[in-house]
Amino acid sequence: MSRSVVAAMTAYTLQLREAEIKLNQNESPFDFPLELKEQALARMAQRAWNRYPDFESIALRTAIANAYGLTADNILVGNGSNELLAAAIGAFVGPGTPVVFPRPTFALYEKLVTIAGGLPIPIDFDPHSGFLPLDEMLSAIPRYDNAVAIVCSPNNPTGGVLPERGLQALLDSGAMVLLDEAYGDFQSGGQAILPVRTDKIVCPPQNLVAFRTFSKAWGLAALRVGWLASTDENCREIRKVKLPYSLNVISEAIAAVALDNREIRDRNVARIVAERERVLAEMRSIPRIAVFPTQANFITFRMQRSLFEALIGRGILVRDVSSYPRLQSCLRVSIGTREQNDAFLAALKEVA
Amino acid sequence: MSRSVVAAMTAYTLQLREAEIKLNQNESPFDFPLELKEQALARMAQRAWNRYPDFESIALRTAIANAYGLTADNILVGNGSNELLAAAIGAFVGPGTPVVFPRPTFALYEKLVTIAGGLPIPIDFDPHSGFLPLDEMLSAIPRYDNAVAIVCSPNNPTGGVLPERGLQALLDSGAMVLLDEAYGDFQSGGQAILPVRTDKIVCPPQNLVAFRTFSKAWGLAALRVGWLASTDENCREIRKVKLPYSLNVISEAIAAVALDNREIRDRNVARIVAERERVLAEMRSIPRIAVFPTQANFITFRMQRSLFEALIGRGILVRDVSSYPRLQSCLRVSIGTREQNDAFLAALKEVA
Repeated sequence: MSRSVVAAMTAYTLQLREAEIKLNQNESPFDFPLELKEQALARMAQRAWNRYPDFESIALRTAIANAYGLTADNILVGNGSNELLAAAIGAFVGPGTPVVFPRPTFALYEKLVTIAGGLPIPIDFDPHSGFLPLDEMLSAIPRYDNAVAIVCSPNNPTGGVLPERGLQALLDSGAMVLLDEAYGDFQSGGQAILPVRTDKIVCPPQNLVAFRTFSKAWGLAALRVGWLASTDENCREIRKVKLPYSLNVISEAIAAVALDNREIRDRNVARIVAERERVLAEMRSIPRIAVFPTQANFITFRMQRSLFEALIGRGILVRDVSSYPRLQSCLRVSIGTREQNDAFLAALKEVA
Repeated sequence: MSRSVVAAMTAYTLQLREAEIKLNQNESPFDFPLELKEQALARMAQRAWNRYPDFESIALRTAIANAYGLTADNILVGNGSNELLAAAIGAFVGPGTPVVFPRPTFALYEKLVTIAGGLPIPIDFDPHSGFLPLDEMLSAIPRYDNAVAIVCSPNNPTGGVLPERGLQALLDSGAMVLLDEAYGDFQSGGQAILPVRTDKIVCPPQNLVAFRTFSKAWGLAALRVGWLASTDENCREIRKVKLPYSLNVISEAIAAVALDNREIRDRNVARIVAERERVLAEMRSIPRIAVFPTQANFITFRMQRSLFEALIGRGILVRDVSSYPRLQSCLRVSIGTREQNDAFLAALKEVA
């Protein structure tokens, strides 16, 4: 009885498999420090749980703004960056709105565009280059009126990024650009990290919404906290679509504690990036494996045949992304601790 | 630059006023017990925060199913019942879908229908009777193809309910019925509490989705936990629209602790219902005040002129609902503790 576009959709699924070493969800291998957990939770027992969260989420928005050199009016916080992506799509994508995005990318975008009645315009690209298909997107955008562009950079699940000046070119095209930077912390050189404040770009660009999350680099996936940065006006419009009170008080408070301890993220990122480069180099030396360049906290690679089950048999759970367009016979492995990565590499060398 | 239906919308707002006694958000006046808070939080420090929540939320869905005599396949949990309402509207309401709902009611429904491109068909009614406009809804539904009905019973912000057999009549109309029971715990006689399991109704009705929340009777508004009950098939369809991982692990775990301690809700409800009846009787004795019958944890009343500011001046914050259709010069007061209610009544008698 659901409407036809929903009935025709497949659900977002996760293969519920288990293995000793879990490298399938791009989670941080590093938990939040126990003493900070206990400190944050102790304060939460004193908070009134019968009262709704602050309507404006002003404490966390201000903490984020201060950390990134913005103002609270440029920030919305939500229940994971997914919720804010959905709200932004609700604000900018209606029946027939053309939405240009690279493919393969995070499957949620196309689902949300479809639910909104928009016109998905996927731009297929080959992930071997390590770059998203900027030129093809720039060619497609002017063919439509009022196109919206969605870009995940670094891109999930391929790891590639927009090329140098790619974001500026997209903004110059006039499209509303929704830039998902869930993996932005892991990008080398910091080219596009939070572009609303980089001085290479008119600040804040009127047609840019950038999304960030505490789930990856901060190691807080369990708490579901994300945020977006954009102009005051865009924030006001997106907020009309976003549900009120979408961030619970405990997650909100813990995210603020995290921002007070930014060395946690910096240390996590340094360790993960170093491991990524080490694992990449090792994987490139394995015959019969093609590795895609990546600036995220994961590596996607192509094999001659699927090694998913063979890896599970050796205690390693990775993500089977072989059903994505252009990712036939591909797997995605998240960067774990040094020991986890070594176990993955040993298993891969055995089965490849 | 947002699309026209969003640009034309006004934001959901809350008057950010302060006063000593807060009776403006239909919150429970009773916080969750401190010892249970501490017990739940202590376990949370041991949980890995770097890992995503369980993809299936199976623990909480099973706990709810057990508590209400359902199966986990009949249950979805989410970030407040609002999130699930939005997902259900996304599943059943597309461009042009007619959606029949009483007016005045919770403002979010019409916003969500508008965002989805649906056709809002408000059925204006007079809240003095204490009943929702069943006959008028039943007349309207057959005038449209594949209508969806949204009913909040007890209704926010008027307090009225569907009349006896009203739900069955709505289901017999063939409309998909989204029944928001956020205030269902407070309803006397239990007529419609979780109708998917009452033996008066075919179980589970194919065209019913019922929504519940931990925010009101359980006193857990800060944590944002809601759930819905429907058929397996409806749950599968709605889940396609709902964002994955929308409930953080801490709120999920605390909701499960709450279900293990149902006497908390029962005690809260008994105290609030007793106070509601006492406050109602007192208010009915005040001249120049017209009180609407209510089965919720709040009372809405009409005055000859707004007393909102006068009450704030006496330390009482209520909700100004006078901008709602048919609620000119009306205020809504949430039931608080006996002391809070006495302070409200004393202030009201002074200013009325």
